[in-house]
Amino acid sequence: MMTSLNTGNVTFMIITTLLVFIMTPGLAFFYGGLVDKKNSLTMMFYTFISIGVVTLMWFFGGFSMVFGSDLSGVIGNPMEYFMLNNIDYTVSKSHGDNIPFLMFFMYQLMFAIITAPLMTGAFANRLNPFAWIKLLILWMLLIYFPVAHWVWGGGFLSQLGFVDYAGGTVIHTTAGFSSLIAIMILGRRAVTQKKESSNVNLMLVGTTLLLFGWFGFNAGGALAADDVAAIAFTNTGLAASVALVVWVLISYYHKKKLSFVELATGAIAGLATITPASGYVSPQGAVVIGLLAAVGCYFFVEVLKRFNVDDALGVWGVHGMGGFMGTIYIGIFAIKSVNNIEASMEQFFIQLFGVVAVAAYSMLITWAIMKVVKGGVSADIQSKGLDEEYFSK
Amino acid sequence: MMTSLNTGNVTFMIITTLLVFIMTPGLAFFYGGLVDKKNSLTMMFYTFISIGVVTLMWFFGGFSMVFGSDLSGVIGNPMEYFMLNNIDYTVSKSHGDNIPFLMFFMYQLMFAIITAPLMTGAFANRLNPFAWIKLLILWMLLIYFPVAHWVWGGGFLSQLGFVDYAGGTVIHTTAGFSSLIAIMILGRRAVTQKKESSNVNLMLVGTTLLLFGWFGFNAGGALAADDVAAIAFTNTGLAASVALVVWVLISYYHKKKLSFVELATGAIAGLATITPASGYVSPQGAVVIGLLAAVGCYFFVEVLKRFNVDDALGVWGVHGMGGFMGTIYIGIFAIKSVNNIEASMEQFFIQLFGVVAVAAYSMLITWAIMKVVKGGVSADIQSKGLDEEYFSK
Amino acid sequence: MMTSLNTGNVTFMIITTLLVFIMTPGLAFFYGGLVDKKNSLTMMFYTFISIGVVTLMWFFGGFSMVFGSDLSGVIGNPMEYFMLNNIDYTVSKSHGDNIPFLMFFMYQLMFAIITAPLMTGAFANRLNPFAWIKLLILWMLLIYFPVAHWVWGGGFLSQLGFVDYAGGTVIHTTAGFSSLIAIMILGRRAVTQKKESSNVNLMLVGTTLLLFGWFGFNAGGALAADDVAAIAFTNTGLAASVALVVWVLISYYHKKKLSFVELATGAIAGLATITPASGYVSPQGAVVIGLLAAVGCYFFVEVLKRFNVDDALGVWGVHGMGGFMGTIYIGIFAIKSVNNIEASMEQFFIQLFGVVAVAAYSMLITWAIMKVVKGGVSADIQSKGLDEEYFSK
Repeated sequence: MMTSLNTGNVTFMIITTLLVFIMTPGLAFFYGGLVDKKNSLTMMFYTFISIGVVTLMWFFGGFSMVFGSDLSGVIGNPMEYFMLNNIDYTVSKSHGDNIPFLMFFMYQLMFAIITAPLMTGAFANRLNPFAWIKLLILWMLLIYFPVAHWVWGGGFLSQLGFVDYAGGTVIHTTAGFSSLIAIMILGRRAVTQKKESSNVNLMLVGTTLLLFGWFGFNAGGALAADDVAAIAFTNTGLAASVALVVWVLISYYHKKKLSFVELATGAIAGLATITPASGYVSPQGAVVIGLLAAVGCYFFVEVLKRFNVDDALGVWGVHGMGGFMGTIYIGIFAIKSVNNIEASMEQFFIQLFGVVAVAAYSMLITWAIMKVVKGGVSADIQSKGLDEEYFSK
Repeated sequence: MMTSLNTGNVTFMIITTLLVFIMTPGLAFFYGGLVDKKNSLTMMFYTFISIGVVTLMWFFGGFSMVFGSDLSGVIGNPMEYFMLNNIDYTVSKSHGDNIPFLMFFMYQLMFAIITAPLMTGAFANRLNPFAWIKLLILWMLLIYFPVAHWVWGGGFLSQLGFVDYAGGTVIHTTAGFSSLIAIMILGRRAVTQKKESSNVNLMLVGTTLLLFGWFGFNAGGALAADDVAAIAFTNTGLAASVALVVWVLISYYHKKKLSFVELATGAIAGLATITPASGYVSPQGAVVIGLLAAVGCYFFVEVLKRFNVDDALGVWGVHGMGGFMGTIYIGIFAIKSVNNIEASMEQFFIQLFGVVAVAAYSMLITWAIMKVVKGGVSADIQSKGLDEEYFSK
Repeated sequence: MMTSLNTGNVTFMIITTLLVFIMTPGLAFFYGGLVDKKNSLTMMFYTFISIGVVTLMWFFGGFSMVFGSDLSGVIGNPMEYFMLNNIDYTVSKSHGDNIPFLMFFMYQLMFAIITAPLMTGAFANRLNPFAWIKLLILWMLLIYFPVAHWVWGGGFLSQLGFVDYAGGTVIHTTAGFSSLIAIMILGRRAVTQKKESSNVNLMLVGTTLLLFGWFGFNAGGALAADDVAAIAFTNTGLAASVALVVWVLISYYHKKKLSFVELATGAIAGLATITPASGYVSPQGAVVIGLLAAVGCYFFVEVLKRFNVDDALGVWGVHGMGGFMGTIYIGIFAIKSVNNIEASMEQFFIQLFGVVAVAAYSMLITWAIMKVVKGGVSADIQSKGLDEEYFSK
């Protein structure tokens, strides 16, 4: 490895890091626009406060638990990079191609920030914002840091040959399945809300920032401005577009009205599903995956409604199942000439094993965390809305 | 040509592609904020659905019709890159300087996406969203793909020496003149709307994204992070600022009130006008062009109102005539030391011929398409608003 | 110095320039969302019109007054680069590392644009928009251009060894202390407004653009994609996050309600304070500075309220004192291995002298400008709101 910085790659890391960063406020606007007006501030608070809290956790040992030296395949050594100890201000010795170690630290931070807030879309009108902060801290410590280590930090799943390009398993599956178990414990909302967006404009601003940032979310995984980055970038655009169009068609034939909520959800389903595969499949494969994403996620969102589970904004169907499906599609669509992974029966089962293990682990631990944290709110507060209870404007 | 990637140029293409991408939602917010509230969703839908539809068309042959091997100066071979056939995942052999072919594909896609939606500002309250999709598909096939080939893909206009740096003719003139003919066929709105913005904040968010992205729209044309990119970038900022200030002055003396609609329209007029010339003129020339843009476009917008043509958001005056004027200004202001094109009587007439040909072609074909598509809505629906007819929130 | 362009650095300048650019509309949305609805357009107009006016001033001599050859330590030669005279379209000979001179011109322009509008947050409901334009022009000529020359253009403060990495003194201190003196002259608002945001969503969109852009604001100072850029980038994220969390805690214990105004203000206090130090301190130092920023700025904002000074949006406490404190923290926290400046008693007093001199100069000159410009509005207009008086929608 060379030991000097490559200015093109440094700039690449700066821009992709910022693109992932802006997805977090984008998510807040997306969820804040979708929920009813009486809970919109609370919903956005879940996400905005996470920016601060997760950054502090990342600095005080979180990064080190993911990327520190592997301890028995389970976790990274938390003291190794505690408070950015032992890092070199110049070129990274072990992560990326001629980029500063700090840019790797910051890039990975942005993934850590956005993951837990993905869950909150399911919690509308039911979770006390202080309980959220406790849940957030425990969830990062017990789920995100370990799982990210297993997959990206040299832990046992990566040792098995399991791959996840940009976080289908580490991010979307963990958040999606955790939110499912959390809302089963919280129960249905006392006051039934119509599923319609209270602020379509805000929701669309959020969708825009999510689409914009997601290109960096997927392309950045290369840690260098190279041909794999270009493929991941292209796959991102293709899968999102196909899923958007197909979802609009399905929902129009199903509900006989156009809807921006459906259009945005379709695009995000395509993005969540292509994420783990984006750096391993061809653009033609990405088009097929976009199609499968729309059909699959639409089905899972509708199924959950039939089961009477109150996943307010469809987090499990879109993120949980999107990330799940995309992870196993690597075993079906990966092409060696793209990035050294070839689809095979063996790879398929490794992928399936990994994502099932992570989904099960996430549900189990989230169940335990929820038992400790509690955090449901009374029917009275639900009825007047959480914003009035907790927020001054 | 070298055959390895240049990381600085790859990153340059990633960021400029994304900058053009985010202009499309920006356009949706700009138009959605300008129209009355009863048609805002429909207006934004025209643009958002285009992201999906045009991406699919681009993948299934559209790109190839523009950049495939030239067939008689008229069109590119549609099968050459059909479904990204025959492309190499690594370095481009024929487009740009050491960048992946896929980044060229994606960069040009973003231009293709935004063009047709520019028209929709003229259609407020009058076009059925399903008819829009038909119009969009036919318009791309019969107007955008051929014209882009003529100018940028090696077709007959480029063979004549006609130049258009970032789409004054290919994008703004085609959309602006097409919208003019379309609204003549659709007729005036049954319900007269006051021309004032229903949501200034949304309009300003859109304006912000348009300004932000336009720097990449113009600078990206170099396909490399070089001195021409820096000149185009600088010219973009200068022309927009001059036009903003001059337009605010003109409109204030004319109407005796300040207005954000006028301020934003002024900036966009400057941007549309500098676009074709941005990579060929000096910064001093860009300042003059910004001044001419404000005076000229303001005049054309006002003239059209006198003629009682209901161009709801001034698309023809700003984009049609802005792109038109900027294209011929190349023949007056281009400087060889900037980018190998020198102003001359000959160049002026080549530019004039090209842009007149494209404007006439766009009007003729749009007339034919509108006769096929129809798509006007009844006075009843106009009166209650298109959103209520077609959308669930 | 090499004489060829470095594509990575050119791309770095393009993206950082745009990041600073988008902070200006972000600021407009932040302030526009915070003030009451009757003054929101006027508030945003102050900022948007500055984009156009300052760009013209920059082209017609402003840039040259900052970066032209030093005249006695006081000002740059205004004719040297008047109308971009004497500049070379290719590589910069004197600014930055293998970047076009024009990118340096544009990058610095974006700093010039955002500075004066920072003041306007203090003026809510009290300043005629035409008077603002006069104030803006005089303020740039008499305060920004000289001070920027003193610190960044080779003037007397830089000759003394005073440093300011990204504008804590040049931008935040000048604007913050100027706004303080301006509102003392304008007086309190006739109509008392509750300090609550009229449009939290708009305020949060603005906050998002400010956070997003601020990474480029600080990282760009290196003028190259190097290790110092990565440190400044990291420090930006850390200080903002610490300050956000600490400010939320303080304000919650103080006021017993959560508030997005407080959350956003906390993040911005951290950003303003780290700005001057971002390229000189370690990430560990940035965490401490973030903590001090939250505690310090919160205190100064509250103190000013006790003194009954009507700084509507806390500009002095956050920007004035944030920039002030950050400037002197360089003398305490700078580390030579980061960027060749080491904390010392001598450096501390140089920093203190510089920032006090600039604060005093800004107040004195702003006082004189306000006496000339006047620009207060009558109690009648204040009562109906400035938007109705000056704007058509």
